[in-house]
Formats: sequence, structure tokens, C-alpha cells
Amino acid sequence: MKPYSDELLSEIFDRLFPICRSISGPGLRESLGLFAEWMPLEFEQVASGTEVFDWPVPSEWHIRGARLTGPDGRPVVDFADQNLHVVNYAEPVDRILSLQDLQPHLYSLPELPEAVPYVTSYYRRHWGFCLPHALRQQLPAGDYHARIDSEFVNGGVDFAHCLVPGESEHEILLSSYLCHPSMANNELSGPLVLLGLYHRIQHWSRRRYSYRFLLNPETIGSLCFLSRHHEHLSRVLAGGLVLTCLGGPNKGLSYKASRQGDGLIDKVVRHVMAHDASWSWRPFTPEHGSDERQYCSPGFNFPVGNIARTPYGHYPGYHNSLDDKQFMDIAHVQDSIDRIEYVLRLVEIGGVFANTKPYGEPHLSKYDLYPTENSHQTRSMSADTLDDGRLRLNLVLQVLSQCDGTRCLVELADDLGINLEQLSPVVETLERNRLQAMSSSCR
Amino acid sequence: MKPYSDELLSEIFDRLFPICRSISGPGLRESLGLFAEWMPLEFEQVASGTEVFDWPVPSEWHIRGARLTGPDGRPVVDFADQNLHVVNYAEPVDRILSLQDLQPHLYSLPELPEAVPYVTSYYRRHWGFCLPHALRQQLPAGDYHARIDSEFVNGGVDFAHCLVPGESEHEILLSSYLCHPSMANNELSGPLVLLGLYHRIQHWSRRRYSYRFLLNPETIGSLCFLSRHHEHLSRVLAGGLVLTCLGGPNKGLSYKASRQGDGLIDKVVRHVMAHDASWSWRPFTPEHGSDERQYCSPGFNFPVGNIARTPYGHYPGYHNSLDDKQFMDIAHVQDSIDRIEYVLRLVEIGGVFANTKPYGEPHLSKYDLYPTENSHQTRSMSADTLDDGRLRLNLVLQVLSQCDGTRCLVELADDLGINLEQLSPVVETLERNRLQAMSSSCR
Amino acid sequence: MKPYSDELLSEIFDRLFPICRSISGPGLRESLGLFAEWMPLEFEQVASGTEVFDWPVPSEWHIRGARLTGPDGRPVVDFADQNLHVVNYAEPVDRILSLQDLQPHLYSLPELPEAVPYVTSYYRRHWGFCLPHALRQQLPAGDYHARIDSEFVNGGVDFAHCLVPGESEHEILLSSYLCHPSMANNELSGPLVLLGLYHRIQHWSRRRYSYRFLLNPETIGSLCFLSRHHEHLSRVLAGGLVLTCLGGPNKGLSYKASRQGDGLIDKVVRHVMAHDASWSWRPFTPEHGSDERQYCSPGFNFPVGNIARTPYGHYPGYHNSLDDKQFMDIAHVQDSIDRIEYVLRLVEIGGVFANTKPYGEPHLSKYDLYPTENSHQTRSMSADTLDDGRLRLNLVLQVLSQCDGTRCLVELADDLGINLEQLSPVVETLERNRLQAMSSSCR
Repeated sequence: MKPYSDELLSEIFDRLFPICRSISGPGLRESLGLFAEWMPLEFEQVASGTEVFDWPVPSEWHIRGARLTGPDGRPVVDFADQNLHVVNYAEPVDRILSLQDLQPHLYSLPELPEAVPYVTSYYRRHWGFCLPHALRQQLPAGDYHARIDSEFVNGGVDFAHCLVPGESEHEILLSSYLCHPSMANNELSGPLVLLGLYHRIQHWSRRRYSYRFLLNPETIGSLCFLSRHHEHLSRVLAGGLVLTCLGGPNKGLSYKASRQGDGLIDKVVRHVMAHDASWSWRPFTPEHGSDERQYCSPGFNFPVGNIARTPYGHYPGYHNSLDDKQFMDIAHVQDSIDRIEYVLRLVEIGGVFANTKPYGEPHLSKYDLYPTENSHQTRSMSADTLDDGRLRLNLVLQVLSQCDGTRCLVELADDLGINLEQLSPVVETLERNRLQAMSSSCR
Repeated sequence: MKPYSDELLSEIFDRLFPICRSISGPGLRESLGLFAEWMPLEFEQVASGTEVFDWPVPSEWHIRGARLTGPDGRPVVDFADQNLHVVNYAEPVDRILSLQDLQPHLYSLPELPEAVPYVTSYYRRHWGFCLPHALRQQLPAGDYHARIDSEFVNGGVDFAHCLVPGESEHEILLSSYLCHPSMANNELSGPLVLLGLYHRIQHWSRRRYSYRFLLNPETIGSLCFLSRHHEHLSRVLAGGLVLTCLGGPNKGLSYKASRQGDGLIDKVVRHVMAHDASWSWRPFTPEHGSDERQYCSPGFNFPVGNIARTPYGHYPGYHNSLDDKQFMDIAHVQDSIDRIEYVLRLVEIGGVFANTKPYGEPHLSKYDLYPTENSHQTRSMSADTLDDGRLRLNLVLQVLSQCDGTRCLVELADDLGINLEQLSPVVETLERNRLQAMSSSCR
Repeated sequence: MKPYSDELLSEIFDRLFPICRSISGPGLRESLGLFAEWMPLEFEQVASGTEVFDWPVPSEWHIRGARLTGPDGRPVVDFADQNLHVVNYAEPVDRILSLQDLQPHLYSLPELPEAVPYVTSYYRRHWGFCLPHALRQQLPAGDYHARIDSEFVNGGVDFAHCLVPGESEHEILLSSYLCHPSMANNELSGPLVLLGLYHRIQHWSRRRYSYRFLLNPETIGSLCFLSRHHEHLSRVLAGGLVLTCLGGPNKGLSYKASRQGDGLIDKVVRHVMAHDASWSWRPFTPEHGSDERQYCSPGFNFPVGNIARTPYGHYPGYHNSLDDKQFMDIAHVQDSIDRIEYVLRLVEIGGVFANTKPYGEPHLSKYDLYPTENSHQTRSMSADTLDDGRLRLNLVLQVLSQCDGTRCLVELADDLGINLEQLSPVVETLERNRLQAMSSSCR
């Protein structure tokens, strides 16, 4: 593994940006391989032709070049200049055709005349070129040469993941997608945040949960991952986040709840929002979104939300060439890493714990958690050695009372009107004294 | 079966009205037989003397005539003129007695001096005459001849029912009672609506549920039906409606919820009310009502509500001779049929469905339910062939996400703030593509 | 047993007050023995050294005398005058020491300069004297003689209880603690109310529940009781009350809910509060309180609340010598008995009952609970013999409908907006007719 620091994110971005990714093929593998320089990713592939739930795994798309040449013999657009110029998954073509016949194969954005749109056609054979509307308007009549040098190859859909183990086998899934060509906010910001979180979490002094990091092409990639691992996830998944569009200009983060709506991460984010107005909440919807649509499909109904900064569809550069590094901003990517790490630290103590001595109160003075003397002088003490207005003692008693293996500590914090962070030292004290243990995920 | 049309309702009413019905006996059988001319009713009888739950099945009451003759030898009232003149289930009598001794056997309504009240005494031997209060006031002193030619005969309590099968064995029960003598709103309107609904539903192009139509004498008849069929109902009953008082002058219908309060029909009617202010809601009460009191008794707790237009007790003619065809109005009976049919059509799609491919989203473009191309041009399309602002696609995704075998589609419509009717084509499309099936009743 | 009347409470108080109680030892046993003159208490002891859940059962503390003598040879304070002068569970000492060295062993209340504080040190060996702050301020420099004649003896922790059996084996637990030396409101009021309730309940004409009366030293005593009887309680406990501080000047009572918050007694007290503004409600907290902290620990989670009049911590005399008979007032103790007896009478009919004929409505006219005749004249009658506006009949129907073995009658009373007392004759009528029986506790 290469040594990582957040300062490297800009450089890693620059290496990833030019690659022509798709939901399969060499560009995807090259991108995954690049992440594998800093993360111990394990690679998996589901072969073309496999039935994955209701979906066929497509043949790989190999694109070598594409150029549209005008009547004057000069190139109108060339894939070599900008990989968005070719429709992603375009079939090969080598034809001379009139402007009129060409028009159904051209894509441009009248409202953004300088932008090159991003167009895909994965499951129906089609070809086309994407170009600025300003340029399209000036195309003269005449014969055009449309040439796309692509190939459909038997191969498969790739994805890659790794696990940072924790004290429990219960897992938090952090996933992002890697299948868009040269776009920044809606593509590379998510995987870069994932990489940053991997390194933060790996350096935590302890982890109650295990953390799984997953990179996959969107939709078909998460379906392939699910087809291989859904039984495992059913057993261990305590929560998940799909990371997407995390580098845009918005100040705070935006959370789309899981379909359950009251999973552990749902509850923790709701708690964070009550103390930080920069967050916003999107209720679950199956109408649009990213891979949480698959994780939250009714058969799985996994507690997986989606976290974004400047979500898809809510900015002009969405799915076109304006979504570049300048729009995205590496500093926002780093800020997103900070904020999501904060949420995950709260997730560590927000779940369901069990009091290991639940029959009667534990004899707390034995652990220096209660004053041994009962007098007017000790009424404000948490222990013989701690005169703190009973702040700690009251939280110790509350946590022990709640730790019944059914209720989340984040709910206790909400009930007490305190920040969940304040419970962290209490939880650690009780764990150290073996009075409490994380009992299971709170889904 | 005779050919039926709603236009016949008036004529059928006229044949039924004069019959002296009771909870048993020839009048009841004649009335059931009349309905059997237009519905394939199966007849059942529970024999007199049988213990039905906590109740004894009474002997049949056969009434041949009854006349109260005045001191002048002229008839005061005669059963031959109006069958309400005799107390229903009156024991035989043939006595001369003074006006004073007669008074405890006379029934009249001071506040409605022209009306003949309807009085019954099923389970205690008694006799009496019912007459207009104006007439009673003028009765001279003297000897009266009370003669009732009735008989208690070993026989039984009759009821009749038929099933219109649907795709599921889960049943919707539609029941009405047939035991009151010559009264219109509170007697014949219910069975007439039942007959109309039978013909509407039989002509539906499809039925997801099966529909059972039941006519019985009130209380003892539903208890007899339950004693024979409660195990079957426990297994298949998805909802039920007791039809009563459906011909009165009120504009909209009034629904009395089942004891559960959140059965499928309860939910659908609540939904309809949110879109149609002419409906009104009565919460369940055991204090009064009709056969839903038996269906909703705590041992059964079936999801059976009661639907009325001008409910019992809420109009002057209740249980007296003012409740006639003029008060009732055949046009209102027909309107009630329309409205209840509308509710039942919503019940067909308001229940619990199951996504047959619940693991991940189905590959919708395969079914022409998603655009194959992903571009700015297809963002408002529901399919390659349908540019509708994603209206259908969003509903398809919502329905598939909700169809988890636990949630009702009527609740989805409520959540989305749309009319349940709008889901009907979506549900049908998904069923046709075998992506969804009704999973079970939503009780 | 001696004959009891509430008038004896003052005399019993006077015998109990001077005894130096602690969580073990002769003073506790003497006090329990005194109660046993009027209640058939069974005594139990858990031996010193036993592990009770997380706690060690301590050695017994035997105190024979204690005196602090001043430099002038005259006693400063003497245990013989006031048993609060010695720290409860003080180890033996016989030392001459300077005022400066003595200070860490002195306890006084600057804000209440005439009061002697109550100080304990059960689980850490310690000694000390408690004295009025005014006196302490005047202590001259010089040598003091501290002498405490105490001993730690192998023995055990004692508690005592008795059962008044009822029709059901389901139990209501009434408990109070007996471990404080000479204090009135926060010690003797609770056991005196317990004694009064024992005699009230024993004289009830019937008891649906069985009633267990328990006296124990606080915390360690309830843990000892639980260690012996928690399996039994898990099986039969329908509710419980810890009786404490019931003699103070407040007008109404104050209820601290069980951890469950919706046990039978929680519901009944919430109902009583809706009709009597003198009650107040304290939500459950593990932060402070009495033995309910043990009963409600998450492993047990028993439905045990705490009932007080002038609760611990809320009056100046709390845990000091100002908590005397004058502050307490025997009349308030008697009023508390009245009020708690009232609650328990409601508990008797507030729980879960089962309709013994739940299939259809019972044939109520058979039991003279419905008119046999159905006419306009009987529409306001509850039975052939009762013209009461259907008041009884409606309640009979409501109760039968609710009695499904899952819902509490106190919830029905709340739903109907009536006082639970009004259901009492209905419940009794239905029980007498074998139409209803208490099915199980409502926890």
C-alpha cells in the first residue's frame, strides 16, 4: 500500500479524471486498480451473461476511439479530446450520412450551449455523439462520417471491496460507484471520500463495528455485489451509506434516509441534524437515487441511506462536462470526509448495548462510580473522587437503565436532550468495567 | 335466473313490501325466495332449539291474521290492512277485555300520532297491537276483542347466500338483513342494494377477491351463519360490509368502522372520505348497530363495517309505518349501489400486494417500463415510448417498493397524496408483467 | 395478631421512632418484629458474605454506644441522646485527637445549623459523628475523645413479608423500607401506610389480585428479596408500589412511574390524575429514588412504581433530625392510606378481563341485561326492569366488547371519558353472570 494523506486527493483525482469509465471494461478496472494502490481492495467479477436477480450481466464495452468528421473533412468532435463525446456503451459504427440522418444520433443541451452531455445506452444497442449545442447549431448540411471503434467483449462486471475489522462482526457498509467517465462531483467525489474514510477509520484506536468499503459500477455493480453477499449482509449489516456527489459547493451534507427510516444511521443523522442546522434530510424514495435503491428494495430492505453534499439533479453540471474539478473542489471533499467520520463516531456509541449486570443496579461504588459515603456532602458527587454535580453518575445510571438490548443510546440522548457525544466517555467507562457491551446492531 | 336490471328494483320492492317477515317463518322464506329469482342463493336453515353460541334458535312464528275489534263490533285495527298492527312474534290470543286491561298490550307513538310503530318480542311470550296514537286516543271504554291467530312451529331460522368467485379465495362479505315486515329504508333498501351489487360485481371483467352475498334475519340470522361458517371466514375474510338503511334522503353515505378500525375496508373508506366530503364516519360501537355487532364480537373481531345512508334512529320513520317507499326513494337505492361499487373497486387495488422480484429493482426497461437510454431527453420519460413527466414510472417504482407483503396500497396512496384510483393502471401493468401479485388480504 | 385500628398508628410510631435501625442488625430486627405484632410477617435472612447479584451482603452492624467528649471532659454529642449522632455503620474507634484531626470525621449542615444530619457508610469502613452546625462552630481547640462502641458481626440482611391471597395468583406488591434510624417522613411513614393498607385490603369483601406486603432495608434488602423471589415475581407480578415519604405536608400524592411507564398501575394512576388535580406524576428515572430502581432494572423491568406525598430531597428535613413526628403528621399518613386504597380498588377492575362468551354477543335478555321487548318504549331501558337511559346496557356492551384478553378496562374508561369507578358495578354484574373473568395481569 502506498502511504496516504488527504493532501494526495487532488493528485489521485487528476489521475482518475481522464479515464473513460463505464459499467464494465478496462476503464473501470484501471480506476479500481488505482484505488487499490491505497486500499487493500479485493476484486470480484460476475461474468457477462449471468442472470443477476432480474438483470443480465452485459458484455464488456471496449472503446478505442470515436470521431465525427464534418463535410469539410475536419473532425467535429473526437473521443480523444473528451470521452463524453461518445454515447457510453455505443455500438461500433462506420458510416457516411447526411446531417438530417445524423441528427437522431446527436445529443446536446440547448439550455447549456457549451456543455457536452453524458449519455448512456447500456441495454439497447445504439450509437451517438454528444456535443455542445452551440457547435451543433453551426453544423453545415452535407455528408458526415460517423466512426466509433468500439467492441462488445465477453467479460464481466467488476467491483472491489475490503473490510476493516472491528470488535463486532456487525458491519457498516460504505459504498460508492465508479462508472461515469470524466465527471467530478457526480463520480469521483464519492470514491475519494470513501478512500479518505478508509484511512480515518483504520486509524481509530478501536472500532466496535467492522467497516466494509465497496466500489462498484452503479446499479448493476451493486446488484452483482448483492448477488454474491446478500446472505452475509442479512446476517451482519448494521447500517450503510452510499456516498455520492460529495464535492459540490453546498455547505452542509444531505442525508437520504433508508427505506426503513429508523435504522441506526437514520437515527444518528436525525440526532446530528437536531444539533447542526447545516444538514438536510431527504426521506426515502424509490423514484430516484443511487445504489440505496437496490439495498432498500423490499426483499432486502437493508438500512442503507445515501449521503450527498450537492445531490444529483440539483446543479447545472449534472451529467455533463461542466461537472469538473473546479465545480467540485477538493476542499469540499475533505470537509465531507470530516463530517461523515463524525457521524460514524456517533454510530459507534449510538446503537444497542446490553447491561451485563441487568438484575438490580450494579454495586457502582465498587468501580468508583458511586460515592461510598451517603451524606449531604456527597449528594453532588459521581464517585468518591469526582465532585461534578452528579453529571457522570446520572449518565451512568441512565445508560445502565437503557442498556437492555432493545433501545438505542441515540434515542436515550434524544430523550435526555443531550448530544450523543456526551455519552461517549460514559459508554467507555462502562465497557472498561465490563458493565456494558454492544449487544447487536440497531437496525 | 331472471334477467336483472336496476330498473327492476322498484317492481321487486313492490312485491317484497307487503310480506310479513320476521326472524323466522314463511314470510322470511318467501322473501328469500323472491331474491333467489335473480341471484343463485343457497338456502340454509338452523333448526329450532339449536344452541347457537349463547342463543336458542326460536320456534318459527306463523301468523295468519290478527284483529282488534271495538265495543261497537267494528275492527279497530286489522293485520290484513297493515302487518305492523300486530306485535312481531305475538303469541296467539282470543280474549274479550276492557280498554283498561287492553292498554298494556297497545303500542302507539304520541309524538307521531299517525304512525303505526314496529314492535317485537322474540324471546318472551307476549301479545299486542300497534296503532296510531290519534286512533288510540279516541278509543271508547268498553269491551274489546283481541284475536291473534298465530302459532309457534318447530322449524328453524333461514338464511341464504351465494359466492361470486374471484382470483383469490379471500372474500369480501356483503350482507343485509331480511326480517322486518312492511318497512322500506330500514329493511328493503339493504337487500335491494345487495342485489344490485351482486349484478355489478358479477359483470366486472375480473375480480381479485371473491364476493359473498348474504341475506339473513338480523342478529339471530348472522349468529346462525357464523355458527356454520366462522372457521371459513377466519381463514378467508378480507373485509365485510353490513348494508342497511341505504335508501333514505341523505346525500352521501355513512360508514361505521369495524371494531379493528384499520381493516382494508376501513382504510379504503377513510381514503375515499379524504377526497369526498359527502361521506361521514361513525367509529365502531357495540352499543347499537346491526349484524356487525356479531361479526365484530371480540372472539371473531372480523373486519366488518356497516354502511348506511340514513342510519337507524336518525329519522322520524325509524321502526314505524312512516318508513315507506316514498321516504326511501328507489333513486337513492341506485345511487347507493354506485357508491358502494366504487368503494369495492378501490378495495380491489387497495390491499397488500407482493413484488414478485423483490431483490433489487426489476430490470424495468425489459418490460418497457423504463427508458433504455439515459440522457437529459429521457429524464421525463416513463419508458422509451411514454413521455409523461415520469408519472407512470414514479408510481411503478413506488408501488414496487411498497409491495412487500405487509403494507396496503391504500396507505401508499395516502402517503403520496394521490387518489387510489390513479394506482389502478399501475397495479394492472405490474400484474400483467408478473412483477406483482395480491399477496393476501389486508385485515 | 394484635387487633389493629388506624388510631394505633401514633402509638406504633412512638415505639418505632427511637430504635436505631440500619440495613442489618438488631435495630432492624426489632422494628420488623414490632410490625409482626399486627401482620403475619414471615422473616427471611440472607447471610453476610453472600453475593446478591453484583452486591456483597455485609456483616451486621451492632452499635452499643458512641460519644464524642470535648477537651473539658464533657460530652459534645452522645448516641444515647440521638442515634443520628453516629455515622450509620461506623467502625469502632477509641481515640484522642485534636479538633483539626477530628474535623474530617464531623458532619453538620451549615444551612440548617440546628439539625443533626443522617450519614451512612455501609460499604467502606469509616467512622464519624453528626452534630448541629451551631454546636460545631463553637467547638474549642483541644483534644477530643472519639469513642464508638460498635462491632461487625457475621449475620445477614433481614426482610419480612406476607401475602393476602386473592382470587388470582397474580400479585400486587406493596413494599416499604425499614433501615433509617430516628426519622419520620423518610422512614416510618412508608411502613405505617403499608400496615394500614394490609388491614384495609384484608377486610375487602373480595380481592381479584393477591397482595404481597414487604418490609426490607432499602436497596440491599430489595436485592435480597429479589434474589430469592424474582422468578416467582416474573410469573405473577401484576404491579407494585414502593411506599415512601407518605406523611409530609403536601396535599396530594406523587407517583413515579415504572420504567415500563404503561403497566396497570401506571395506567390507573394516570387515569386518577385526570380526575383529581391534587396528584402529580414523576416519570421514571434511574437517577434517584428508592427500591423501584432495583425492581425496574432492565433485567427485571417489573411494573413497580413509587408513591410519595412529600418526596425525598424536596423538604428541608430530608435526611436529618428535622424529619420528626411533628413534620410528618399522623393524619397525613392516614390520608395516604385512604388514597392508595382508592387506587388499589381501581386496579382491581382496571386490568385485562376476558369475555367468556366472546363469539357473538351473549343473549343478554337471558340475564336481565337487555329488554325482551323491542319497541320505542324500551329504547331507553337497560333491561326489562331498568329504565335508566340505557346507561348500564351501554356499559355492559362496551365492557363485553373490550374484554378480549388484551385491553385494559382503564383504557376503556379513558376512551369513554368516564371514571373507572363507574365500571365497577358492570364488571361485578358480568362476573356474577359468568360472562367475564379477569384474564391475566395487564403489565
